[in-house]
Amino acid sequence: MSESVYKIIEMVGSSPVSWEEATKNAVASAGMSLRDLRIAEVVTLDMKIDEGKPAAFRARVKLSFKLLSD
Amino acid sequence: MSESVYKIIEMVGSSPVSWEEATKNAVASAGMSLRDLRIAEVVTLDMKIDEGKPAAFRARVKLSFKLLSD
Amino acid sequence: MSESVYKIIEMVGSSPVSWEEATKNAVASAGMSLRDLRIAEVVTLDMKIDEGKPAAFRARVKLSFKLLSD
Amino acid sequence: MSESVYKIIEMVGSSPVSWEEATKNAVASAGMSLRDLRIAEVVTLDMKIDEGKPAAFRARVKLSFKLLSD
Amino acid sequence: MSESVYKIIEMVGSSPVSWEEATKNAVASAGMSLRDLRIAEVVTLDMKIDEGKPAAFRARVKLSFKLLSD
Amino acid sequence: MSESVYKIIEMVGSSPVSWEEATKNAVASAGMSLRDLRIAEVVTLDMKIDEGKPAAFRARVKLSFKLLSD
Amino acid sequence: MSESVYKIIEMVGSSPVSWEEATKNAVASAGMSLRDLRIAEVVTLDMKIDEGKPAAFRARVKLSFKLLSD
Amino acid sequence: MSESVYKIIEMVGSSPVSWEEATKNAVASAGMSLRDLRIAEVVTLDMKIDEGKPAAFRARVKLSFKLLSD
Amino acid sequence: MSESVYKIIEMVGSSPVSWEEATKNAVASAGMSLRDLRIAEVVTLDMKIDEGKPAAFRARVKLSFKLLSD
Amino acid sequence: MSESVYKIIEMVGSSPVSWEEATKNAVASAGMSLRDLRIAEVVTLDMKIDEGKPAAFRARVKLSFKLLSD
Amino acid sequence: MSESVYKIIEMVGSSPVSWEEATKNAVASAGMSLRDLRIAEVVTLDMKIDEGKPAAFRARVKLSFKLLSD
Amino acid sequence: MSESVYKIIEMVGSSPVSWEEATKNAVASAGMSLRDLRIAEVVTLDMKIDEGKPAAFRARVKLSFKLLSD
Repeated sequence: MSESVYKIIEMVGSSPVSWEEATKNAVASAGMSLRDLRIAEVVTLDMKIDEGKPAAFRARVKLSFKLLSD
Repeated sequence: MSESVYKIIEMVGSSPVSWEEATKNAVASAGMSLRDLRIAEVVTLDMKIDEGKPAAFRARVKLSFKLLSD
Repeated sequence: MSESVYKIIEMVGSSPVSWEEATKNAVASAGMSLRDLRIAEVVTLDMKIDEGKPAAFRARVKLSFKLLSD
Repeated sequence: MSESVYKIIEMVGSSPVSWEEATKNAVASAGMSLRDLRIAEVVTLDMKIDEGKPAAFRARVKLSFKLLSD
Repeated sequence: MSESVYKIIEMVGSSPVSWEEATKNAVASAGMSLRDLRIAEVVTLDMKIDEGKPAAFRARVKLSFKLLSD
Repeated sequence: MSESVYKIIEMVGSSPVSWEEATKNAVASAGMSLRDLRIAEVVTLDMKIDEGKPAAFRARVKLSFKLLSD
Repeated sequence: MSESVYKIIEMVGSSPVSWEEATKNAVASAGMSLRDLRIAEVVTLDMKIDEGKPAAFRARVKLSFKLLSD
Repeated sequence: MSESVYKIIEMVGSSPVSWEEATKNAVASAGMSLRDLRIAEVVTLDMKIDEGKPAAFRARVKLSFKLLSD
Repeated sequence: MSESVYKIIEMVGSSPVSWEEATKNAVASAGMSLRDLRIAEVVTLDMKIDEGKPAAFRARVKLSFKLLSD
Repeated sequence: MSESVYKIIEMVGSSPVSWEEATKNAVASAGMSLRDLRIAEVVTLDMKIDEGKPAAFRARVKLSFKLLSD
Repeated sequence: MSESVYKIIEMVGSSPVSWEEATKNAVASAGMSLRDLRIAEVVTLDMKIDEGKPAAFRARVKLSFKLLSD
Repeated sequence: MSESVYKIIEMVGSSPVSWEEATKNAVASAGMSLRDLRIAEVVTLDMKIDEGKPAAFRARVKLSFKLLSD
C-alpha cells in the first residue's frame, strides 16, 4: 500500500440547499472525468446573497484521487 | 465595475438547526440596516453544548456589502 | 467565575447525513465519559467518497469541558 | 438562546503598564457607545519603543457584543 | 501617547490600473466619513477577469484610525 | 446560478515591470487553453534578484474558471 | 536524551488579575494529576467582559510533559 | 463506516537518527496504552543542538485512533 | 527570464522508507506526463499506521513545472 | 518619510515576572548594539515550568529598527 | 549545487510610488553590505496614510542570500 | 535561568541525501561564527528537481542561540 500516489485538485461546488450538497455537486462534476476519488477536504465555505437573501451555499474543496494502485 | 468599494463586517449568527440557518440569521440581522450585501464568508463554526446535548450551531461570518455602485 | 479551568480534547465524528450530525456524534461519544462539555469548535470538515459517491461527512472538532467549578 | 446574533469589531488599545490594561482601555472606549460586550479576543500584541525604551503596550483585540437578545 | 485607542475596519477597493490605486480608492471612500486614518494593511489581493482579460485589481485592506488623541 | 461548479488551478506568472503584469501573464498563459476564467487570487508575491538588482516580479495566483453554466 | 517522548494537552486557565496568573492556574490544575510538566505554550488569550467591565483573563495553553525519561 | 468516531492526541517523539524514527518512537510510546492507531500527522519538526552538533531529531505529531468500530 | 510562467500541481507520494522517498515517488509519477519540473514543496507529512506499526510515510507536495521558456 | 528602510530581527526574552518584562529584556539586550528600535511585535508567548511551578515567562518578539533616516 | 547554504533576513522598504519600488528599496539598502542576494519574498504590504492621503507604500520582505557557493 | 535572551536567525541548508542532513548543514555553516546554538526549527522543506530527478533536499530552519547566560 505504501507506493500509492494521489493527485489533489481544487474545486468549488454550490447548492441552494446546503454545504453538504455543494460538496456533493463538486464531486459529481469531477466524477465525470476522474476515477478513484477518495476524500473531499473543505477549504472554505461561503454563502452568496442576492437582494438580501441567500442564493447559494458554496464549498471550496480539495479532492484527492488515486493515480497508482496499491 | 472596477471602481466599486466594499465594506466587510464580522458577525456571529446561531440556529438550533444548522450552520446554514445560523449564517442566514446573521445576514437577516445585518440586513435590517445594511444594503447591497453580496457574500457571507465563513470564518469559524462551532456548536454550543448544554447539559451534554447540542443547543445551538453558530457561524462566525464576514459579510461584504457594496458602498459605491459600479 | 474567573478561576474556572477547562480542558480541550480533539475528536473526529462522522455521519452519513451532515456535518452537524457528525459533530453531534463526536460529542455523544465524548459524553459517555466526560462531564461539563461546553463547546465543540470545528477544526476541519471533509467528506469521504466511496466508489465516486459520498459515504460519510466528517467533522474534526475541539471539545472544551470544565475541570473546576466557578 | 440559539437565535442570538453577535457583531464583532476590531480595536487597538494601549497602556504604559501592561497588555491587560491595554485590552481594558480598548473595551472602555468601545463601551462608551456599545452595549452587551461579551469577549475581547487578542489578535496581536506589540510594544512601542521610544529612544530604546518601552513607551506603550498595545493589544489588538476583537470585541463581540450582542445585537439580539436570547 | 500610550493611552490612544484605534478602531480597525475592513474594506475592499478596486481599480482598473493597480493594487496601489485599489488601496487608495478604499481609503478615499472611507475618508468621506472617517477621520484620523493611519494605516491600510493589505489582507488579500486579487484580479477580476472578464472575457479572459483583466477587468479590475482589488485590494482587501484593514484601515486603522484613531478614536482617542494621545 | 446556485448549481455552478468551478475548478481552481495554481500558476506563477512573472514580469520585469510589476506584480500586476505578472498576474496578467499567468492569466494569458492559462487563457490559451481554458475558458471562463473569473478570478485570479494572489497567493504569494516575490522578486527575483540578479547581481543585486531586480530581475523579475513574480505572482503565484489561484485561477478559478467555470466548468458548468448557471 | 534523544529517546524521550512528550505528550501535549490543551487547557484553558483564567484569572481576574492577568494572563500570567491564568496560565499558572491552568498548570496548577494539570499538576494535580500530571508529572514532569515542561512548557506551557500560549495558543490564544482573551478577556471575558461582564456588564461592560473585565471579569476574567483567560489563556488557552498547550502543556507538554514527559512520558519517558532520557 | 460513517458512524465511526476518532480521538486525536498530540505527542513529541525524538530520535538521534531521523524524523521518521522520531515519529515511530512517538507511536510506539502511545501504542503501549492505545489501540487502533491510524495516522500520525506531523505538526512541527525540529532538531536539538548540543555543543554545536545535532543531538536529537524531534517530531511533534497528532495521532488519531478509533474509539468506535464501523 | 522574467516572462516565464509556471503551473503548480498538488500530489501525495508514499514510501515505506522515508518522506524523502515519498517525495521522489510523487515526482516520478508526475514525471511520466509532465516536463520541466523544478521544485517539490512539502505541504504536509504524515505516517500511516497499520496494526500499531508504521506502514507508509506520505508527503503531500506542490510541484511546479515550467509552461513557457525564458 | 517614504524612503525609510527598516530591518527586523527575532529575539526571545524571558522574565520571572511577566511577558511584559520578558519583552523589555529582549529589547534591552538588542539595545546594547542596535539603534533606532521602533516596535517589538509578539510572535509567541510561553512559560517554562520547573518541578511543576512557573520558572520563566518567555516572549518571542520581532524587533524593527530603522536603517535609513526619513 | 546541493551543498549551498542561504541566510534569510527580514526588511521593510518604502516608496511613495508603489510596492515594487518599496521592495527594490529594501534590496538596495541590504545590497550595500550583502552579496549574492537571490530572492525577496513579500511577507506583508501596507500603505501609510497622512492627513487622509497615501504617504508611503511599504513592503515587508524576506531576502535570501547565499553564504556558501555551490 | 529566567533572564536569558536568545536571538533567532533563519537559514536554508541543502543536501543530496536527506532533510536531516540539510538541517545539519545549515547548523554547521552557522556554527562557524555563532556560539550557543540550541534548536533548529523547521519552517519549510522542499526538493529541487533537475531534469526530472531529485537534485537537493532543502530545509529552511530557524536557529536559536543564546546571547546571555543564565
